[in-house]
Amino acid sequence: MKTNLSTQPYKGTRDFYPEDMRVRNWLFGKWSNICRKYGYEEYDGPMLESFELYAAKSGEEIVNNELYSFEDKGHRKVAMRPEMTPTAARMVAAKLQELPKPIRWFTIPNLWRYEAPQRGRLREHWQLNVDIFGVESLDAEIEIIEIARDILLSYGAKQDMFECRINNRKLLDAVLRNFGILDNEDQQKYKVCKAIDKKDKISQDDFDQMLKDYNCTPEQIENLNKYLICTLDNISDFVSEEESGYQELITLFDLFSIEDKNSFIKFSPGLMRGFDYYTGTVFEYYDTDPINRRSMFGGGRYDDLVAIFNGQKIPAFGFGMGDVPAINFIEVHGLMPKLSSETDVLITIMDSNCKDYCLQIAEDLRNMGLNISTYIKSDKLDKQMKYADQKGIKYVVIAGETEVSKKTFKVKNMTDRTEQELKIEDLRLELFK
Amino acid sequence: MKTNLSTQPYKGTRDFYPEDMRVRNWLFGKWSNICRKYGYEEYDGPMLESFELYAAKSGEEIVNNELYSFEDKGHRKVAMRPEMTPTAARMVAAKLQELPKPIRWFTIPNLWRYEAPQRGRLREHWQLNVDIFGVESLDAEIEIIEIARDILLSYGAKQDMFECRINNRKLLDAVLRNFGILDNEDQQKYKVCKAIDKKDKISQDDFDQMLKDYNCTPEQIENLNKYLICTLDNISDFVSEEESGYQELITLFDLFSIEDKNSFIKFSPGLMRGFDYYTGTVFEYYDTDPINRRSMFGGGRYDDLVAIFNGQKIPAFGFGMGDVPAINFIEVHGLMPKLSSETDVLITIMDSNCKDYCLQIAEDLRNMGLNISTYIKSDKLDKQMKYADQKGIKYVVIAGETEVSKKTFKVKNMTDRTEQELKIEDLRLELFK
Repeated sequence: MKTNLSTQPYKGTRDFYPEDMRVRNWLFGKWSNICRKYGYEEYDGPMLESFELYAAKSGEEIVNNELYSFEDKGHRKVAMRPEMTPTAARMVAAKLQELPKPIRWFTIPNLWRYEAPQRGRLREHWQLNVDIFGVESLDAEIEIIEIARDILLSYGAKQDMFECRINNRKLLDAVLRNFGILDNEDQQKYKVCKAIDKKDKISQDDFDQMLKDYNCTPEQIENLNKYLICTLDNISDFVSEEESGYQELITLFDLFSIEDKNSFIKFSPGLMRGFDYYTGTVFEYYDTDPINRRSMFGGGRYDDLVAIFNGQKIPAFGFGMGDVPAINFIEVHGLMPKLSSETDVLITIMDSNCKDYCLQIAEDLRNMGLNISTYIKSDKLDKQMKYADQKGIKYVVIAGETEVSKKTFKVKNMTDRTEQELKIEDLRLELFK
Repeated sequence: MKTNLSTQPYKGTRDFYPEDMRVRNWLFGKWSNICRKYGYEEYDGPMLESFELYAAKSGEEIVNNELYSFEDKGHRKVAMRPEMTPTAARMVAAKLQELPKPIRWFTIPNLWRYEAPQRGRLREHWQLNVDIFGVESLDAEIEIIEIARDILLSYGAKQDMFECRINNRKLLDAVLRNFGILDNEDQQKYKVCKAIDKKDKISQDDFDQMLKDYNCTPEQIENLNKYLICTLDNISDFVSEEESGYQELITLFDLFSIEDKNSFIKFSPGLMRGFDYYTGTVFEYYDTDPINRRSMFGGGRYDDLVAIFNGQKIPAFGFGMGDVPAINFIEVHGLMPKLSSETDVLITIMDSNCKDYCLQIAEDLRNMGLNISTYIKSDKLDKQMKYADQKGIKYVVIAGETEVSKKTFKVKNMTDRTEQELKIEDLRLELFK
């Protein structure tokens, strides 16, 4: 009968035992709650999509290296979703006319990437996706960036524990154009953008060498390096103030400062975000903890993505927030609460003569709205009490032969170990609060 | 820019737009709620498992024909889970010693089967799984069958809208042994069991022919047909009352009748359930509606499954309940409630001068705990009102130039179309209940 089947989950994935699931449910509850506060509605799509959906517009790296794709038995090439935005865009495109605008959607899908498992990066992970469709103005940016902030605050975080770095793809396009870095037959602009995306992870020398390899002149390299450390005040040294990317960026910072909400936002000239579909504002939230200073999540504007389905454009702005970096942030900052058992009361079963009496108590308490576990088999009382302790159940009800004959029951509070005996007709909800 | 990408979801899967998701969340909420009432805790496992996990113990048909399996880039053969029980068994086996018993678990995973999509059978579906580990006695059967009943009742169903058919694998084994139908080199018993499983879907002649093809004698065929219409009272014509399968079945019916809860349970001598891992009681809930008389879901005892990992047995009993038959049952019986929007209030935006005033109202109402959507862009008031109607949002707040100057706001109840104007300091939660 025994086999050599492993009890381990598949590489890069996690088993969620009840104590892990409690954390996940707590986190997803925070996420949903804030989204609903802003009028966002939950949606979901299938786990499998056609391969072409990702080939069309995600980053090249994902499609070539990281995608879980295979042929189904009907010879369709399918992929396990590596991100949710293409699915959201597909669903919006399918009902573009009938959906009332603005469309405010959120979802918490599990996503798949084939990659070497490492800290914070797993093959299966969950991600909150929040998107607004149909809003051209920067009001979309403001609302979405505030939702992300409110989620971090809902963990109990202080505003100085994180910052939101902001950039604009159109601005960067204009800067590169001014520097003479273009989307020529060498795809120079595309390659330089990928180099900028990697800059934080490599040395200055390696960065310069990459640019040289991509046929950048020494002057272009110098200009780029100067630009990448510029501030809001001197962007205009590199680009005309007439450029729409410049105007969007400056206006966005003005809008935040009007509401005095600008303390956590910061211009970041080298911020790229991986996906190829971004068209305007991009942002990324960073943990400011000195030992954990890393990107947690981000998003941006993708006004062209929905149009790949039917040619009709609709402005779109959103972000995706993974569960692994979220839990990491919460733990690094000591914000994880002690989550107690969802089961309110354990009903002990002393022997089979008392069972019906005890099960009736269980049924009555369930009808009052409580979550009740029964020990189900007869066992020594101390073993049953230990079970309640192990499961973190706060109250235990005991009714053995004596209690049954007296029509009473005992309630033990497992926190302070106090016990009281009551008549069966005094059974009520308030005893267990 | 335009491509020929389809906006349709992958064959046999569903997109859940917000109105569909609301139904799904309502259903899953009912499921979780009843499980928690009985002290069951939520868990989850990965979407991908090793192929061997299903090859070991699921039904042959699933593994050969219906499994979504492929090789990952590291040449591991993996499968998208077609059912949750093997994952649950794997997780229990991994922590068998440390988990306090009884183990009560539930989960609502999405599952995959490659098959021709048809009514009630999709490639991706969701399924509630409820399992109890560590209880040998029939108390496990009673609790689990009652949870399933309570879930149906929680939809608003009456007890006569469904019935629970019960059988016992050990009993059937003993009967077949008595008839001389054995697990010989022809796998006669295995094949006959599969024929019995199909009996309801084929004619009597086809059934008899199948048995004949499996080398059953005319006498065996006659005996089998007699047995398959027997009742609780005359099972003993076919099997000794000493058989454990017989005793379990009779005791289970006795236990139900003590509590006067036997009106919805019914002995069904031909009930098999597809999975190969069942070892004792099996059950299946049927819709009793004459036009919809079909199996909705079921489960059973699988005391040997956990042992395939490490040789250590633990008794187990549980069921799986799919979302598609559940919604079908709810709709056929007219039990689907009208689910209203989770967004409580729409804040209209009359023009850019009033925007900050309106956004402040939105923020204040969110802080009071309400879910608030803003129209975000200026538009004609009737267009904004129409949006609230389309979204099913019950209250609209209006504050144009006049209201801003008077420091007031208007609240419109979209159900009865009444409107009132109030001072801004009178903004409070109760206006929107």
